[in-house]
Amino acid sequence: MTLQAVLNRVDETLPQALDRLVDLLRIPSISTDPAFKPDCAAAADWLVKELESLGFTASVRPTPGHPMVVARHEAPGPHILFYGHYDVQPVDPLSLWDRDPFDPAIEETAKGAVIRARGASDDKGQLMTFIEACRACKEIHGTLPGNLTIFLEGEEESGSPSLIPFMESNRQELSADLALICDTGLFADSQPAIEMMLRGLAKVEFTIKAATKDLHSGMYGGAAINPIRVLTRILGGLHDDQGRVTVPGFYDDVDELPESVRAQWQSLTFDAGKFLGDVGLSIPAGEVNRTPLEQLWSRPTAEINGIWGGYTGAGFKTVLPAEASAKVSFRLVSRQDPSKILPAFKAWIEAQLPADCSLEWNDPIGSPASVMEITDPAFEAARAALSDEWGVPAVYTGCGGSIPIAGYFKTILNMDAMLIGFACDDDQIHSPNEKYDVKSFHKGIRSWVRVLDRIAK
Amino acid sequence: MTLQAVLNRVDETLPQALDRLVDLLRIPSISTDPAFKPDCAAAADWLVKELESLGFTASVRPTPGHPMVVARHEAPGPHILFYGHYDVQPVDPLSLWDRDPFDPAIEETAKGAVIRARGASDDKGQLMTFIEACRACKEIHGTLPGNLTIFLEGEEESGSPSLIPFMESNRQELSADLALICDTGLFADSQPAIEMMLRGLAKVEFTIKAATKDLHSGMYGGAAINPIRVLTRILGGLHDDQGRVTVPGFYDDVDELPESVRAQWQSLTFDAGKFLGDVGLSIPAGEVNRTPLEQLWSRPTAEINGIWGGYTGAGFKTVLPAEASAKVSFRLVSRQDPSKILPAFKAWIEAQLPADCSLEWNDPIGSPASVMEITDPAFEAARAALSDEWGVPAVYTGCGGSIPIAGYFKTILNMDAMLIGFACDDDQIHSPNEKYDVKSFHKGIRSWVRVLDRIAK
Repeated sequence: MTLQAVLNRVDETLPQALDRLVDLLRIPSISTDPAFKPDCAAAADWLVKELESLGFTASVRPTPGHPMVVARHEAPGPHILFYGHYDVQPVDPLSLWDRDPFDPAIEETAKGAVIRARGASDDKGQLMTFIEACRACKEIHGTLPGNLTIFLEGEEESGSPSLIPFMESNRQELSADLALICDTGLFADSQPAIEMMLRGLAKVEFTIKAATKDLHSGMYGGAAINPIRVLTRILGGLHDDQGRVTVPGFYDDVDELPESVRAQWQSLTFDAGKFLGDVGLSIPAGEVNRTPLEQLWSRPTAEINGIWGGYTGAGFKTVLPAEASAKVSFRLVSRQDPSKILPAFKAWIEAQLPADCSLEWNDPIGSPASVMEITDPAFEAARAALSDEWGVPAVYTGCGGSIPIAGYFKTILNMDAMLIGFACDDDQIHSPNEKYDVKSFHKGIRSWVRVLDRIAK
Repeated sequence: MTLQAVLNRVDETLPQALDRLVDLLRIPSISTDPAFKPDCAAAADWLVKELESLGFTASVRPTPGHPMVVARHEAPGPHILFYGHYDVQPVDPLSLWDRDPFDPAIEETAKGAVIRARGASDDKGQLMTFIEACRACKEIHGTLPGNLTIFLEGEEESGSPSLIPFMESNRQELSADLALICDTGLFADSQPAIEMMLRGLAKVEFTIKAATKDLHSGMYGGAAINPIRVLTRILGGLHDDQGRVTVPGFYDDVDELPESVRAQWQSLTFDAGKFLGDVGLSIPAGEVNRTPLEQLWSRPTAEINGIWGGYTGAGFKTVLPAEASAKVSFRLVSRQDPSKILPAFKAWIEAQLPADCSLEWNDPIGSPASVMEITDPAFEAARAALSDEWGVPAVYTGCGGSIPIAGYFKTILNMDAMLIGFACDDDQIHSPNEKYDVKSFHKGIRSWVRVLDRIAK
């Protein structure tokens, strides 16, 4: 069997693959700090060279910020685009690192061998799993394993300012049949997962204004309206006693989970007690009739992310302030539309506003949820491939946050994204002592070999 | 009639009385600024000299801060203590003054003649009304008008740090049958008033704590409790839809107004529309079945003076904060006791706290309301005297804020205080271009002559 031959090749050449990853990790490609601009360029160059050596037509593509890397191999079969990013987070505070973050090492730990370095997990180790899978296929078969584009970004850790313009300018080149994104993790460190739904986000800051100036509560208290009182009364009613958001129409475009997915989630060994216990909590705080995973992945939320008004310094000032403010965000699911949710929230506030108060409404912005079309047979094929490799059934999961690139692939390039990754919860991404398990790297490469074997033909 | 003779004397010697006030106003006795410490001492010396010249036994009494002035004239009859303060507010911003704040002048205005200087109204002009009344009586009768103590403070504008220790150390000397305090105003600039109730104040800062650290709403939103949500839900229920405070027992020790006082208040020409309109409001915000004056003077309040939690800077951070805080104060009336109200508020919060949250409760402090015993005949006698002088009935009023000295007289020296003053709302105390109407000064002196004629015998 040629698949087995490729997998054997992956096993045999793991030391060399690790050496190559270590080379890439030595480049301090910190995208937020202009001092590392040459290093970002060096990482892009390094990747182009690697990809060219495998037979891709690859190039560094300038942007106003750090360059993109685009590599193409034309072949029969569905066009598959792989996305990763070569930039890394800053390393501060350096004093908390046990070694130089850009002097990678393989370390033995209680859990097994790990590759320790900034970017080991996020995202250089992950993106190299795909490139090494391509290499093993090429070495056994003499050709790359499909009709592939590799698209690597250098600004993911600094807000991706060039991403949308680049996608819009290169729409035809980048529009594939399916995108693969390797920037996510295993479920609970052990079970392969395909993230199939990412919540959207709508957010707004607003201010409730009352008197034309701050008033003294001795002189005005009792007769003058206090905007903090108005703000707390309104926001205090944002959830009902079932944990549901009370804004009219909020749930209109929220779909129930497909029964097959719900059944998968119920079979997951998710320890909500540990998840909350790790941060000092014990009771899931969302809708009462939903499991914690539903609360996190498939149900929308309304959260007050910031609130302020009146005197907040040391001591006391008996002020009736002229205004009070809040920042509120909504995690969105299914077909919830920020352009409907935010005006509904505004109208809900206005309906409760006393006649003496006015509302100032600042810069609402939002993006909808991403829900992948898992009815595409490629999803079930990939799931089977991952299950084969890991020996446990791969699951469809959700993601409570947003991964903007997945949304852009859908809205700009009209393609679904399959989010598959091999990171572990303890990888300490964005933190000191980041690492990637050698097992994640090794089985990650093998996973892509199997996935491509099933979907790229 | 000898009363008329004294009043005539006041009228005839007004220019000389104004000259003396101008002399006192020239001394820049700013108590908050150490640079003016010699000037505070000079003002105290000036007053002692004046009082000695009138036949008082007067002395400067050192304190750790600025000195007190105590002057005594023993005579038959009830012992009456008069309180005022010789220190003044700072003058910043000096650029907004139309003249040197310590170069007083009599200026003609549309409203009539005014004395323009820092301290003209607060409180040098007011305290001199009493001293000049004593002088006129002495000049006609050959003796001071009663069994009097004059007690003048030099730290009122800087928090009165020496006042309580001084009262406690000199309890016997200062304990009179009645205190007169001249640091208040006419009602609506035209009607003489005796303030008979001053609201108390209880205040506390507290924090609701949830997770052990700030959480990301993408990762935890929906499952982790947000303490801002808890805080707004609890504080949003602090008032019911009738504007009443919902803390159990809050109104237990709140008395209804005496019918006679209520009738007086209803007859007052208080323009609530203008009062609120001046600060951009239109609708009284307190208990719905109470008049605006009741809301301000005789009804208790609960106000959120400050609230903060989560991210409050520019832009957005989708954080679920670990904690959220508020500063809440209560204006107290009647027999409401801060040592009952604050624990009741705490218990009310705790009863609504989710199991995953904890309450941190910082430094609650409070002082009760001061309610004068207007059944003491001296009050009605003073009211009649004021009515005679001003040609309109003098009224008992309340005060939404606190005047600490009135409370100290009650709690430390066990005497009621009669708060009578002649300031106008437009006197601009604590602000640039402070003034005192010559009419306030002139009729203030005459008022004290009449009041002493009725109560000091």
